[in-house]
Amino acid sequence: MKVTVIGLGLIGGSMAITLRKQGVATELFGIDRSEANAAKALELGLVDRILPENEALRQSDLVIISIPVNATCALLPSVLDEVNANTVVIDAGSTKNLICKAVANHARRGQFVAAHPIAGTEYSGPSAAFDGLFDGKTNIICDREKSSEKALAIAQKVFEALKLKTIFMDPVEHDKHVAYVSHLSHVSSFLLGQTVLDIEKDEKNIFDLAGSGFASTVRLAKSSPDMWAPIFEQNAEYLGQALAEYIMHLQKFQYHLMKHDTNELHKVMTKANEIKRVLDRK
Amino acid sequence: MKVTVIGLGLIGGSMAITLRKQGVATELFGIDRSEANAAKALELGLVDRILPENEALRQSDLVIISIPVNATCALLPSVLDEVNANTVVIDAGSTKNLICKAVANHARRGQFVAAHPIAGTEYSGPSAAFDGLFDGKTNIICDREKSSEKALAIAQKVFEALKLKTIFMDPVEHDKHVAYVSHLSHVSSFLLGQTVLDIEKDEKNIFDLAGSGFASTVRLAKSSPDMWAPIFEQNAEYLGQALAEYIMHLQKFQYHLMKHDTNELHKVMTKANEIKRVLDRK
Repeated sequence: MKVTVIGLGLIGGSMAITLRKQGVATELFGIDRSEANAAKALELGLVDRILPENEALRQSDLVIISIPVNATCALLPSVLDEVNANTVVIDAGSTKNLICKAVANHARRGQFVAAHPIAGTEYSGPSAAFDGLFDGKTNIICDREKSSEKALAIAQKVFEALKLKTIFMDPVEHDKHVAYVSHLSHVSSFLLGQTVLDIEKDEKNIFDLAGSGFASTVRLAKSSPDMWAPIFEQNAEYLGQALAEYIMHLQKFQYHLMKHDTNELHKVMTKANEIKRVLDRK
Repeated sequence: MKVTVIGLGLIGGSMAITLRKQGVATELFGIDRSEANAAKALELGLVDRILPENEALRQSDLVIISIPVNATCALLPSVLDEVNANTVVIDAGSTKNLICKAVANHARRGQFVAAHPIAGTEYSGPSAAFDGLFDGKTNIICDREKSSEKALAIAQKVFEALKLKTIFMDPVEHDKHVAYVSHLSHVSSFLLGQTVLDIEKDEKNIFDLAGSGFASTVRLAKSSPDMWAPIFEQNAEYLGQALAEYIMHLQKFQYHLMKHDTNELHKVMTKANEIKRVLDRK
């Protein structure tokens, strides 16, 4: 298959590497609004050629869109307008409702598969891409019934080559649950980073006193604001609910702490320990 | 040296393994209030014998106390009472002010070195112990001037064998900075775990949708409440200040989110990205 990747960063770049390695992509075209990223992707061999959008789209069997979710909403309709009647378009955005809505009534909606592979690292850009990023991870397809069987079959081939395990969800349900489980943890980490930088004026103390625990908890604070600000904005309603609950729990903890009520602190932590049982099913 | 380890968990157990391997400990005695832990530590070879406290203390050159910080405060004075005049006692607690205060006027204060090796994992108990836990990590000695030069020299030999890099701090300063950089990240993680378990009633969703990002951010929520509740309680004042600042930043973020002010969200995240530069100096 000839494949165009729009957005040559961590996600799109890693897909390019693995799809080529697995023999799914025989020729790869790249598009990136950053000339530096495009040049870097070419230099790293993630793609074979950097092409203008219309040239790339009209000769591709598959188009992967891996750019910020607001940019996906804006671009997706015109991509569907431009591609051939047999071309399949896949996105990889971390929100699904507005993206699905953006093309809900598009004449070529059947050619589009709305996907969210839950994979990533705190790094971004073409240099962050690597083979194996998606290995064993969960992929969510939304509004499956709006994609044609032919498009789904091709998308499945792609997701299997990436070794993703695909499940299906309604886009609103997707956004709600991903707000709770993924987006909230990004906010908690970004704001932990901000708080520590703010309160601990002497950076040397952070450097000296940061253990592996702090490094792990604050890891996501290194993530790309360009990628995450639009995700938070698109998922503001459900993320806002999750954040309200998080703040409430923190305030309750603060209350027990101020009262030196060690038993209550212990109870909260014992309850939180349950996450071990849930995650270790993996 | 003959060494007694009081508290045969992750910290004490790992010290026992490395000190034996490095030839610093020639004979190891263990004390643990849990019979199961004591038996396990013996079975794993962390210590050579489980002894009653008075028997172990009177024949030891070095005593390591690695138990919850409230238990250390309670036990430390009587340990100093019981040991020989040449024995050195080291603790490894994550708070230092109340521990230092507990023996500030003890006749044998000079034999005690108040330490905090910043190392750990989310696991606990003797089975969690491993060689290399302290390798390259920071160790903080507090109230250095209250330890005798002889005790400090022996403690340094121990910390060097563990490959710890030692710095010195005032105990109040220690507790303040550790609240910001370490204890706050534990609270944020424990409460993220609690929030997600609370809001996401269907555990299968957590299991399916949890990426490596969530796993990393919530890792510390698996930590031992027995160990951490007393730390939070002892450091309530400074941890409370850090928590207040964290909650304030979360509420501001919530406000920008509700207003769909993507520029402000982007600004906050860009500022938080600075943590990358600070941590990557390591």
